[in-house]
Amino acid sequence: MPRYMDIHKNVKGVTSEKLADAHRRDLEVQDKYGVKYLKYWYNEDEGTVFCLCEAPNKEAAQAVHREAHGGVADEVIEVKEGTE
Amino acid sequence: MPRYMDIHKNVKGVTSEKLADAHRRDLEVQDKYGVKYLKYWYNEDEGTVFCLCEAPNKEAAQAVHREAHGGVADEVIEVKEGTE
Repeated sequence: MPRYMDIHKNVKGVTSEKLADAHRRDLEVQDKYGVKYLKYWYNEDEGTVFCLCEAPNKEAAQAVHREAHGGVADEVIEVKEGTE
Repeated sequence: MPRYMDIHKNVKGVTSEKLADAHRRDLEVQDKYGVKYLKYWYNEDEGTVFCLCEAPNKEAAQAVHREAHGGVADEVIEVKEGTE
């Protein structure tokens, strides 16, 4: 299944707790769209969030975010993972 | 040690092989700067590359890329990693 990195920019009020909650909601919703959110990274000061997921397509990845908490990404980029 | 996600945009001629080679050179150089490149993700068509590393600061992360292959990132963002 394709893998995607998404980027959320200038998100207001990013905290570890709020993101953990949003991610938990993604996980609850994702099966409906055939998506698997894997990891995320964030910067609270800049309001930047990166999410890595497996999804059938970009739209499915965004649909999970939209339904789970409404915070869709600014960019969704299909990626391959580099070898270590 | 702080963790950083960097983004390289519009990189020309990105291939799996070229990136694996560039990453290998990062790994060879990184100890000199106290940096540890952990993973990377890329899109060959768009020429986008994300690198995740641990580094004492942004400049050290960029210094490794600069010395290893010259391909410094467009953005380097300090990140925390989300809980699973």
